[in-house]
Amino acid sequence: MAADITESVPVSPWWGWAPPTPGGALSDGTLAVLAEHLGIDAVAARRPGVLDAAPATPPGDADVSSPALTEAEVAALGAAIPTGTMAQDPESRVAHAAGKNTVDLLRQRAGAPLALPDAVVRPGARSEIPGVLAACVAHGIAVVPFGGGSSVVGGVAPLAGDHHAVVALDLTGLAELLELNERDRTATFEAGVRGPEVERMLAERGYTLGHIPQSHQQATLGGYAATRSAGQASTGYGAIAELITAIRIDTPTGPLALGGRAPASAAGPDLRHVVIGSEGTLGVITEVTVAVTPKPTAKAYGAWAFPSFEAGAEAVRALVQDGAAGDAPDVCRLSDEEETALTLAQSGGRQVELLRRWLRSRGIETPALLLGVWEGSGAEPKARLKRARRILRAHGGVSATSAPAAAWDRGRFSSPRLRDELLTIGVLVDTLETAATWTRLADTHTAVAAAIRGALESGPQGAVASAVQGHVSHVYRTGASLYYTFIAKAEDDPIAQYERVKRAANAAILAAGATITHHHAVGTEHAAELPAEIGEQGVRILRAVKRELDPTGIMNPGKLI
Amino acid sequence: MAADITESVPVSPWWGWAPPTPGGALSDGTLAVLAEHLGIDAVAARRPGVLDAAPATPPGDADVSSPALTEAEVAALGAAIPTGTMAQDPESRVAHAAGKNTVDLLRQRAGAPLALPDAVVRPGARSEIPGVLAACVAHGIAVVPFGGGSSVVGGVAPLAGDHHAVVALDLTGLAELLELNERDRTATFEAGVRGPEVERMLAERGYTLGHIPQSHQQATLGGYAATRSAGQASTGYGAIAELITAIRIDTPTGPLALGGRAPASAAGPDLRHVVIGSEGTLGVITEVTVAVTPKPTAKAYGAWAFPSFEAGAEAVRALVQDGAAGDAPDVCRLSDEEETALTLAQSGGRQVELLRRWLRSRGIETPALLLGVWEGSGAEPKARLKRARRILRAHGGVSATSAPAAAWDRGRFSSPRLRDELLTIGVLVDTLETAATWTRLADTHTAVAAAIRGALESGPQGAVASAVQGHVSHVYRTGASLYYTFIAKAEDDPIAQYERVKRAANAAILAAGATITHHHAVGTEHAAELPAEIGEQGVRILRAVKRELDPTGIMNPGKLI
Repeated sequence: MAADITESVPVSPWWGWAPPTPGGALSDGTLAVLAEHLGIDAVAARRPGVLDAAPATPPGDADVSSPALTEAEVAALGAAIPTGTMAQDPESRVAHAAGKNTVDLLRQRAGAPLALPDAVVRPGARSEIPGVLAACVAHGIAVVPFGGGSSVVGGVAPLAGDHHAVVALDLTGLAELLELNERDRTATFEAGVRGPEVERMLAERGYTLGHIPQSHQQATLGGYAATRSAGQASTGYGAIAELITAIRIDTPTGPLALGGRAPASAAGPDLRHVVIGSEGTLGVITEVTVAVTPKPTAKAYGAWAFPSFEAGAEAVRALVQDGAAGDAPDVCRLSDEEETALTLAQSGGRQVELLRRWLRSRGIETPALLLGVWEGSGAEPKARLKRARRILRAHGGVSATSAPAAAWDRGRFSSPRLRDELLTIGVLVDTLETAATWTRLADTHTAVAAAIRGALESGPQGAVASAVQGHVSHVYRTGASLYYTFIAKAEDDPIAQYERVKRAANAAILAAGATITHHHAVGTEHAAELPAEIGEQGVRILRAVKRELDPTGIMNPGKLI
Repeated sequence: MAADITESVPVSPWWGWAPPTPGGALSDGTLAVLAEHLGIDAVAARRPGVLDAAPATPPGDADVSSPALTEAEVAALGAAIPTGTMAQDPESRVAHAAGKNTVDLLRQRAGAPLALPDAVVRPGARSEIPGVLAACVAHGIAVVPFGGGSSVVGGVAPLAGDHHAVVALDLTGLAELLELNERDRTATFEAGVRGPEVERMLAERGYTLGHIPQSHQQATLGGYAATRSAGQASTGYGAIAELITAIRIDTPTGPLALGGRAPASAAGPDLRHVVIGSEGTLGVITEVTVAVTPKPTAKAYGAWAFPSFEAGAEAVRALVQDGAAGDAPDVCRLSDEEETALTLAQSGGRQVELLRRWLRSRGIETPALLLGVWEGSGAEPKARLKRARRILRAHGGVSATSAPAAAWDRGRFSSPRLRDELLTIGVLVDTLETAATWTRLADTHTAVAAAIRGALESGPQGAVASAVQGHVSHVYRTGASLYYTFIAKAEDDPIAQYERVKRAANAAILAAGATITHHHAVGTEHAAELPAEIGEQGVRILRAVKRELDPTGIMNPGKLI
C-alpha cells in the first residue's frame, strides 16, 4: 500500500531535497545505466568544485548579507505574531531562500550568493496573518508565502520587487484539521499542513484526499492550491482544482472566502479559480476545504507493453474516451521508449531479461510501458482492471505482469533524492512538463524531447553524454500530460547548461501549442511565457485583480506576472 | 429516446415561452389537480384583465417609445455589420425586450410599458463584433448580448446603465460548428448556436454534448457559458463549466482566448472560470469549445419511492458517495412528498392507484419519488442501473417501475409551456432554485419551502390557494441542487405576489447558508444577494476585471454586479 510514505514528514536540508542519507548511495542499477547508457563513470565523475558533495553546514553570519529590516519594522512584525516566531539568523534565512529547483540547488551547493529573505515570519495562528500583512503594507515589505518550499519554478524566491525588504511568511505552523464533515465528505484544513499530515489525519477517520504529488512529503495543502497542483493519482481523484470546494485567503485589503455554500453555483464567475493558481500574488491562503474519499483498502496493479509510445497513447486514449466510468486507473503512467529502456536497465536481473524475451516474441522490440494502479475497496479495483485490460489488449497492449506498477508505487518519492545523489557526482538531472490535447500529444512529445536533446548537444563543450526520457502521467478525456527527465554529464557551467535546455523546451512547448506547465506552476521560470499562454488580455486580468487586492504590490512580487 | 425534442428549434412568441399552441389546452389531469388540490376552477378562473389570454399582436409604433439612437449612431452600427442586419421596428425590439422570467411575461401580457432596446444588432460574422463594440464605446451605447433570450433572472433586460441608449446584440446568426475534433472529443461552435442545433450537428457525427437544460430549445451555447448553466443530465455529463475546454470573448478592449492548449494547466489561475458565468458583463462570448461524448444508443429508466424526501436524499447521497464510478444515473431527480403527490395526481388512472396501493403495502404513505436515467451503449446502462438499485434498495427504496422516469423523459420540456397556459387562466406559477451541501440540504429544503408558503399566505388578499413542491435534480459528491415550483391563484397584483415570494425565498436561501442560484444565474434578480454569496472582496474582484476589460461600462450594465 506504500502507506508509510504518507505518514512521516522528512525535513529537507537547505541544499537539496532528501533528508541526509549517509547510506544513500546510488544503486548498482543506476551506476550501470550511467556507465552503459550515458558513458558516465560515477566514481571518476566525482570531482571537487561546483557539483561536489553536498555542503555540510549552511552559510554563517559572515557569509550572508545583513537583514534589511529596521528595528521598528522588526518590532512591528513581531507584534503582529504574538503566538508565532520570527527569525533572522542565517540558518533560517537560508532555509527559506529557495525552493527545490535545480538551478537554486546548484547555486546553494556551490556556495554562490543567494538572495535571502530578511526575516522568516512564522505565525502561530491564522488570526495573526492580517496583522502581518498590515505591517508589511505600512512598512513597504514584500511577503513570500512559504509552505513546504518545494517549488521547482522559483515560486518562493525571496524577491523584494519595488520594496526595500522581503520576508518569508512560513505557514507550516498553521496545520490543523479544522473540520471533517463525513456527511459532505469534505475536510477543512489550515493551509500550512503538509501532505503526509493531511493523509495521516484523514486516515485516522478512514479517508484520503488522494492528492499525492511527488512533492507530497514536503508540500503543503496551501501550496497545492496556490500552484494548481496535480497528484500522481489525478487521473482517478482529479487535480487539486477539482478537489477544492472552498478556500479562504487573507489579502492586504481584506479576507476573501469563496465556495462552501453548495456543491456548485451559478452565482457569477467561480472565483475559487482566481485564487487557485494565484501563487501567493494576491494574498495568503489560510484555509482550504477539500473533497475526501474513503481511504482505499485494496489496490490492483497492472502493466502493459506497447510497440511504441504512440501506440500506448492511443490505447490510453481509448481507455478514457471509450471505457466506462472507472475503467481508467487512478494512477496512469505511460513511459516512452527511452524511459522504458532506462527503467528496465536500472532494474536489470533475470526477470527483466525474461520480460524482454517475452515482448520480443510478441514483436515488441522497443517497448513503451504503461503502468496502472486501481484503488478502491473489496473486489472493485480488480474488476476495473479487468475491464481496462480488455481495452488495452484490443489496442495492442501485451501484459508485462503487475511487478513494474507495484515497483513504481514503492519508489514513487525517490526521484528527487536521486537528483541529489546525481548532482553530487556531477550529473545534471532535472524534469520539466507540459500537457497537450490528444491531437497534439505525439508531435509535442517528439518536439520537446528533440529540443531538450538539441540543447544538450549544442553546449560550449560539444555534445555531452545525455539521456532524455518522457512519460504521460495525468490522463484526461481531451488530452494528457507529458513529463520529461533529462540526465546529462554536467558541463563546467551547469546552470548555463540547465537554462539552455529550459529555454529550448519552453520554446518547443509553446510552438507545439501545448501548455507551458501542467502542474509545476509559473513562478519565475515560466513567467515570460505566460502572455503566450493566456494572452495579453489574460495577463491584464491578473494584473487588475492583483491591483485591487494588493494595491501596494507586496504579495510575492516577480512571480506569475 | 426523446430525440425529437433536440431536433427542432421552436420560435418563442414575444409574450411567453411556448410556440402558439391553439390546441394546447390544459390536460384533464392538470385541471383535476387545480380543482382538487388548489381549489381552482380553471374555467371560472378565466377572467379578463392582467392574466387574460396571451396577446395576439405585439405593440405597434404607436405604443412604444422612439429609439434613442442618432442617425450617426445608426450609421456607425450599420457600418460595423456589413453581412449582418439591424432592426429598429417595434416587433424586433419587443422580441428582445426581456427574457422569460415570469414578471416580464406578466408585464408583456398586460401590455404594461416595457423598456425596449433601441435597436437589435445582428452580426453576420464573428469578425464584425469588435467593430460593433468599438462603435458602442465611441458613441456611449450599452450592449446586451442576446442569445436565446431564455434568461429567467433578467439577464437580457435592456438596461442602458449610464449610457444614453442600449442595443440588443442578437448572436443567433453565429451558429456554425467550426470544428469537431474526434480525436480530442471536442467541438468548437460559434456561440449563438441554439441547443437543438448543437445536438443535431453533433448527432450527425455520432456525438452529444449531453447538456440539456429545460431552456434547451431556445437557449444558445454562449448563453449556457455566460450563465454557468447546468443541464438536466448534469449528474452524469457535468455542468457547462466542466464541459467547456476553451472559450473566446471579444471585449471592448480586445479579444481573449482561454484554454484549448491542454486538458489541464497550472499556468496561473484558470481564467476560463472568470468568463464562464460573467453574464455578458465583460464582453461577448464568440466561440465555445466543449467536450463531447458518443451519443448514447441505449437508456435505462428506473424509479424508486422512499418514505420521505429526507430518506430519498440519504439514498442518493449513498449512491454518489459510496457507489462505484458510473453507479449514479446521468439524470437523477428526487421529488419531495408534495411534488410526488401532485405528479401522481396529474397522471391519475388505474396504474397510479395500483402504485399507491403497492407503496402503502410497503409502509410508504407519502412517497418521495426518485427518477433515474442511465445513458450509454449496449448493456452498460442496465448494468449501471442494477448496481445502483442495490444501493437504493439498501437505503429503503421501493421500486416504482420505470414508467415515471420514462414519462419524465418524454415531457421534460413541457413545464414552461404549462406556465403559459396557467398564466392565461389566472394561475401564477414559477420556479426558483438553489443548491446546498448534504449537511444543509434537508434544512434548506424545509426552510425555503416554508418561506415560499409563508409569502403566498401573507398577501393583501389573505392566503390564496397554493402548492409548493420541490426536487433535487443535480447531484454531486458534496451536495445537491434544490428546485422549487410554486403554484398559486394569482392575486390582483401578481407581480407584487411574485416579488414577495422571491424576496422571502432569497432570504431563506441565504440564511440557510445555501447558494443564491445553482443554475439560473444572477442577472438582475439575484444581484442584491451576490455580496452575501461571494463577499465584498469577491464583488471587488468582479468590478476590477470589468473595469479592465470594459472601462466605459457598456457591457450588459445592471446585471450581476
